[in-house]
Amino acid sequence: MSITVVGSVAFDSIETPAGRQERCLGGAATHFSLAASFFTDVRVIAVVGEDFGVAQESVFHARGIDTRGIERAEGKSFFWEGSYLESFNEAKTHNTELNVFATFEPKIPDAYRDSKFLFLANIDPVLQRRVRDSFPQARMVAGDTMNYWIKDHRSALLEMLKGLDVLLINDTETRMLAGNNNLVQAARAVLAMGPHTLIVKHGEYGATAFFSKRSFAGSDVVRPPFRVPALPLEEVVDPTGAGDSFAGGFFGYLAAQREITPPAFRRAMFYGSVMGSFAVERFGTERMQKLTRPEIDDRFKLFRELTHLD
Amino acid sequence: MSITVVGSVAFDSIETPAGRQERCLGGAATHFSLAASFFTDVRVIAVVGEDFGVAQESVFHARGIDTRGIERAEGKSFFWEGSYLESFNEAKTHNTELNVFATFEPKIPDAYRDSKFLFLANIDPVLQRRVRDSFPQARMVAGDTMNYWIKDHRSALLEMLKGLDVLLINDTETRMLAGNNNLVQAARAVLAMGPHTLIVKHGEYGATAFFSKRSFAGSDVVRPPFRVPALPLEEVVDPTGAGDSFAGGFFGYLAAQREITPPAFRRAMFYGSVMGSFAVERFGTERMQKLTRPEIDDRFKLFRELTHLD
Repeated sequence: MSITVVGSVAFDSIETPAGRQERCLGGAATHFSLAASFFTDVRVIAVVGEDFGVAQESVFHARGIDTRGIERAEGKSFFWEGSYLESFNEAKTHNTELNVFATFEPKIPDAYRDSKFLFLANIDPVLQRRVRDSFPQARMVAGDTMNYWIKDHRSALLEMLKGLDVLLINDTETRMLAGNNNLVQAARAVLAMGPHTLIVKHGEYGATAFFSKRSFAGSDVVRPPFRVPALPLEEVVDPTGAGDSFAGGFFGYLAAQREITPPAFRRAMFYGSVMGSFAVERFGTERMQKLTRPEIDDRFKLFRELTHLD
Repeated sequence: MSITVVGSVAFDSIETPAGRQERCLGGAATHFSLAASFFTDVRVIAVVGEDFGVAQESVFHARGIDTRGIERAEGKSFFWEGSYLESFNEAKTHNTELNVFATFEPKIPDAYRDSKFLFLANIDPVLQRRVRDSFPQARMVAGDTMNYWIKDHRSALLEMLKGLDVLLINDTETRMLAGNNNLVQAARAVLAMGPHTLIVKHGEYGATAFFSKRSFAGSDVVRPPFRVPALPLEEVVDPTGAGDSFAGGFFGYLAAQREITPPAFRRAMFYGSVMGSFAVERFGTERMQKLTRPEIDDRFKLFRELTHLD
């Protein structure tokens, strides 16, 4: 089934120990939708400026992504400049220009409204909530957020969380949101805020899913957590978008399943980690643009070998 | 088959967010041998002072551990005082008194010499090498080290590494030893120093094994890395000895196998992580003293559920 994603489509200038790239195509909705497009149909809601041209749009179209929800506005697209010179786990932001994103009002094409899967990438929780409410029939709603919203927009964020099934955030964000340094206790606190499933992303160490009673409809059993590793990589070129690619692989795979069972959920976590491992191999969206399904399947097998006893 | 371990037997005063405990029984050889004792016979080489009495010795004897190699010397046992108030991943050392350990000369009981598995816990690499050379018939030799030896005793350490089959160290130590921040590249550099297998411990995120061509005798295939998670724990009381308990579970399980195959190695990694997860539940050796084999088997199943697709 199709996924609608709302979030940023942007240009990123990025410096890492592997080099520097100016104005790559980026943004959470971009990375998410490219990764998800290998598994299901994807529709994007975003805003871009006049600098977003045919070259950028064709990256989406080459993967069959519906861009009718990408609004063109006067001015420039969202721009981010950052570096990962000391650590791949944390970006240093040098410059953020919101540009057309500052006044973003998500507009949902009628053709998108039958999407049963909705992904709210990291944007203002007020907007996330508004989009969520436009999809009352959604079967599953997942989303992301960041430290800025957790610290300074807490009440809007808590309101948004009530409408989520699955929240994907990192270790630091989980601890900050819960006000608790123990990950298991913090996860329980976050699950009480709304989402029935929490996926905590650990960067180079993978991710852990925590479940509540409501995680799998019709089941009274609370599942133990599930951990997926990340691939130990010989060379990381650019970690930007790794988390969004994880989310895209995870949610894309889930949306393509007839039924969301615990085993399907586990495989989805593996596909998330697989897509994250590809994303970091090149700057921006380069690797995703050239990726093929057989490469994905091969890496899925490698992930199994990396973790399984038999 | 039996394991001989050389390393510290000590007293630790430890402060964590869970409380403070004075003069717990500790030391790398203690934590290692208790964990390994659930899988095979263990023999300890160490030195203790006059403060090591019947109460401490009975902790070893209750688990059937051979203490004939624990030398009694005049003076006090090795003492360490530390805290984990800011992070469970890194201890802050407040006081270290080497005491009888300052002049430790490992003495190997004749009854130990037929051990085919040898573990060189974290001590002066000159002593590690000396003990290693006393076991020319060893089938497998594993060992640990720390930043102090890597930084200030590099040539002795490199000499010691030539005699190791398996090295177990953490992320920071791996990067420091190799002088390379990329874990995969650093692992390759370390494998070129002697050990055919490197296990990198990631604290709360588990551990990764890296293999060279010589990892599994008779096989020409270089195995891809293998990752085992750690258990997300509701409450961590005291992380002291978690790494040594991991090593004990891992090496104890391996020593009990007829043949060291890749699947046996993977199970050994899981048992290592299982034993580490128990060790941190109480201060010092408390949890290991009360642990039972059925509890170990139950947790092994939980680890499988935590990571496996099917």
